[in-house]
Amino acid sequence: MMNTPLTLTGLLNRAERYFSKKEIVSTTLSGVQRFTYGEYGKRTRRLADALSKLSMGKGDKVATFAWNTHRHLEAYFAVPCTGAVLHMVNIRLSPEHVAYVINHAEDKILLVDEDLVPLIEKVQSELKTVEKYIIMSDKDTLPETTLSPVYSYEELLKEADEEFVFPEDLDENTPAGMCYTSATTGNPKGVVYTHRGIVLHSMATGLADSLALSERDVCMPIVPMFHANAWGLPFASVWFGTKLVLPGPNMTPQAIASLIQEEKVTLTAGVPTIWLAFINLLEKENYDISSLRAVVCGGSAAPKNIIRAFEEKHNVPFIQGYGMTETSPLVSLSTLTSEMDNISLEDKVDTRASQGLVIPGLDVRVINENGDVPWDGKTMGELIVRGPWVAHEYYKDERTKDTFRNGWLYTGDIAKLNDSGYIQITDRTKDLIKSGGEWISSVDLENALMTHDAVYEAAVIAVPHEKWQERPVACVVLQEGYAESIKDELVSYLSSQFAKWWIPDELIFMDEIPKTSVGKFLKRALREKLGQEMTVE
Amino acid sequence: MMNTPLTLTGLLNRAERYFSKKEIVSTTLSGVQRFTYGEYGKRTRRLADALSKLSMGKGDKVATFAWNTHRHLEAYFAVPCTGAVLHMVNIRLSPEHVAYVINHAEDKILLVDEDLVPLIEKVQSELKTVEKYIIMSDKDTLPETTLSPVYSYEELLKEADEEFVFPEDLDENTPAGMCYTSATTGNPKGVVYTHRGIVLHSMATGLADSLALSERDVCMPIVPMFHANAWGLPFASVWFGTKLVLPGPNMTPQAIASLIQEEKVTLTAGVPTIWLAFINLLEKENYDISSLRAVVCGGSAAPKNIIRAFEEKHNVPFIQGYGMTETSPLVSLSTLTSEMDNISLEDKVDTRASQGLVIPGLDVRVINENGDVPWDGKTMGELIVRGPWVAHEYYKDERTKDTFRNGWLYTGDIAKLNDSGYIQITDRTKDLIKSGGEWISSVDLENALMTHDAVYEAAVIAVPHEKWQERPVACVVLQEGYAESIKDELVSYLSSQFAKWWIPDELIFMDEIPKTSVGKFLKRALREKLGQEMTVE
Repeated sequence: MMNTPLTLTGLLNRAERYFSKKEIVSTTLSGVQRFTYGEYGKRTRRLADALSKLSMGKGDKVATFAWNTHRHLEAYFAVPCTGAVLHMVNIRLSPEHVAYVINHAEDKILLVDEDLVPLIEKVQSELKTVEKYIIMSDKDTLPETTLSPVYSYEELLKEADEEFVFPEDLDENTPAGMCYTSATTGNPKGVVYTHRGIVLHSMATGLADSLALSERDVCMPIVPMFHANAWGLPFASVWFGTKLVLPGPNMTPQAIASLIQEEKVTLTAGVPTIWLAFINLLEKENYDISSLRAVVCGGSAAPKNIIRAFEEKHNVPFIQGYGMTETSPLVSLSTLTSEMDNISLEDKVDTRASQGLVIPGLDVRVINENGDVPWDGKTMGELIVRGPWVAHEYYKDERTKDTFRNGWLYTGDIAKLNDSGYIQITDRTKDLIKSGGEWISSVDLENALMTHDAVYEAAVIAVPHEKWQERPVACVVLQEGYAESIKDELVSYLSSQFAKWWIPDELIFMDEIPKTSVGKFLKRALREKLGQEMTVE
Repeated sequence: MMNTPLTLTGLLNRAERYFSKKEIVSTTLSGVQRFTYGEYGKRTRRLADALSKLSMGKGDKVATFAWNTHRHLEAYFAVPCTGAVLHMVNIRLSPEHVAYVINHAEDKILLVDEDLVPLIEKVQSELKTVEKYIIMSDKDTLPETTLSPVYSYEELLKEADEEFVFPEDLDENTPAGMCYTSATTGNPKGVVYTHRGIVLHSMATGLADSLALSERDVCMPIVPMFHANAWGLPFASVWFGTKLVLPGPNMTPQAIASLIQEEKVTLTAGVPTIWLAFINLLEKENYDISSLRAVVCGGSAAPKNIIRAFEEKHNVPFIQGYGMTETSPLVSLSTLTSEMDNISLEDKVDTRASQGLVIPGLDVRVINENGDVPWDGKTMGELIVRGPWVAHEYYKDERTKDTFRNGWLYTGDIAKLNDSGYIQITDRTKDLIKSGGEWISSVDLENALMTHDAVYEAAVIAVPHEKWQERPVACVVLQEGYAESIKDELVSYLSSQFAKWWIPDELIFMDEIPKTSVGKFLKRALREKLGQEMTVE
């Protein structure tokens, strides 16, 4: 067979050649803008030419600090197709971490959205490698800024060549992109994506048994393009000629619902908090969302009441995905196989609430000290992953050896497998509670608590225990109108669902649960706080 | 990213792990047999063990001479997953060519279906490299045969290990399979498929914008497994856990219609002659074919009346594919893009009758002496193809240099492109008629003639001409009940559709048009015959 490399250039070429009239809808600060893939291709080539003139060379790192817009999408291809590496910086990192990741990646050029300039100005003095700043704005003139030297994105494009030719000799293992994990402890860890990895991941996205992304779709990634490649949807959409809707900085439920209605979005993807707010909005206001053929959810486990609302009330399949920055990110999807065609709504919701079946191309195992766990839906072990779009290391980071072992990525997630091989994540390894030699899932307890009307949020953590080694303690934020007197009812609510030794020794009420930059519970902070205050006896 | 190789072992593993209860329905000489993927996996491992014990080593060629059955499918994975190479011999080749391809590939072991044993016995004395014969039969005892040394497939499996472990260290560029083209001139040419090529081709088969092959499908490849990998459907079906229906040696329209009805086939694939006979059967007898979601057709261009019957009368999308043994084989498919949602039935039939749009992952161009042809639906050029499942050479064959040039495969097909980039094959380069510096498509003329009620078959060839260099001559076989007096009517029928200079100078009536082993017109023979008899003036 020909040794034709799997590169992003082939994806872009296809969009330009065959889908030059299909649309990209981009929402920026000045409103909705529309581009065809034909125009997009020319702008992308202009950007590649402009960056090359600014001395971007092969292997150079170019950072973006941006929302989901057409300009970010232009960088998604212009940078890697030239042989350079696109570093998508997470705008929600702390200033210290923003400076850390830009310095650690050694980014040479930084493209920043106009409204995000102040965040970069704040850390500018810390940045050791950035030589040039480019501000992405709809306006002709540059805003006032301390960034220097600074260029206007649109001015650069005006002067550049729309027939810029990308090199044809890129090796498929050339680095194409970089993301850093949002760390809960220590500095963020970098993951490098190759052209090969992204192309294969894009192909997986188009499989009928995966997301089945198609030219016929209208795809709106709400998941940010600075977070795990927006789950790979921008790359795959360009390849397949899928109409793309990029929501930009305004991601209120109203804005999202309007875009779905106006642009007839068929497939959209975001984290559970987005869908919770969206479902709440639909309770109050009318939007036509009948164009949706599926909603994809990931990042953390979705509450079942959201799933039920989509599946039952709005008749929209709710596909939960599992993945990590380290896995490009798609690992598994809660799609339903043909054997589930006649299951009840509740069984369907249960399956949708799982992390689903591994997608073709990857291997997953769940292992504990006895090897692979049985597929009994009960036995827990650590989920490990292997495949051509899974990282093999953290970029220049000694922590590589903790996570990448024996050719597998150790996810740090505790899971069980049901008899069809569907994955159910039950905990993070570090959040798992080891009580008397048995494992207790903090996530299962949290999910149960959060189905109670009185509970707004709940986090369950392990606290040291003399006899049992560790015991669970629940931190609970109550809904408005409820008082701490509800405690006994909550305990008996849990007792009806779990074995006695699973029931938390304490329920502690608080006003808020500390969270990470991407909205996950910051259990480390809770453990530190509570660990100092108490040990359960 | 991990350098996990793309190998067939991963495809088999997935079927065994996740779809062990899904079915393979195999029709053999003794009737319908059913296996689960669980059983299939064990039998495949037994076969790999048995072949290894018969000294099959890495890189060895193992030939099959077989119909579409479960045993052929077992060899499809057992041989390559062990690191050996599966040579699928075309049972319809002439005895000379059968001996040629087996000797040229240097096949060491030959697996042959019981009813095909006589064909191998006929050439046994010519075979220089085959060391062992294995007869695939449902019976316990070996048939009488002169083949020697000879083994019983089922006996070998009984004694073998169902837990045979495939090597994990196969490079993805390891050869996995071989097919030879059915040559019209000279000896057949060999094509080697690598694991990487087959995996990527399988992935392409599952894309929503391609065949969208899914676990939910019931797939029946009628196209033989000895012909261009049965268009890749067996490999992809195993990977996705798709229920497979293998029709075996009996491929009458009745047998096919019954299998579709009984097994609720959703996707099936075969050459136009199959579908012509099938549509004729449905005119006379009732079968429930409502389970079909698509019919795939390839090998040669399908007449529009077949397409119309499927699309209009039976409401089954008719997807024409284009490909070659050299391209694994899928290159393009006549799927409809969203912009065609509201076109008329006739426009739809026209699009379905084209060779369609290139599938994601490959590059195609149509070039003539001026470079790439415009997308005007008129200008003709040669179709060239490039990509990771396209061969880069003929196996040990000097003819490589004629076909593989500048990193592209020159297909020898003359095509034009419409304004959406859909490919329309108009001729083979060698059948194209060059008249007065302009090109005339023999295929367009043939298709037009064959839409006339009086015409059963028509082949148009070039004959030498003093002034115009070449001129078209039509060879026509009339339907029963028509006489040669129809000639003037046929000429005026063509004149209403084509420019004057396209009209054949002669219409010659004959009883039969000579054909190749796979049913294509043997124009070389016609040219030789007529070239000697006539030159048009």
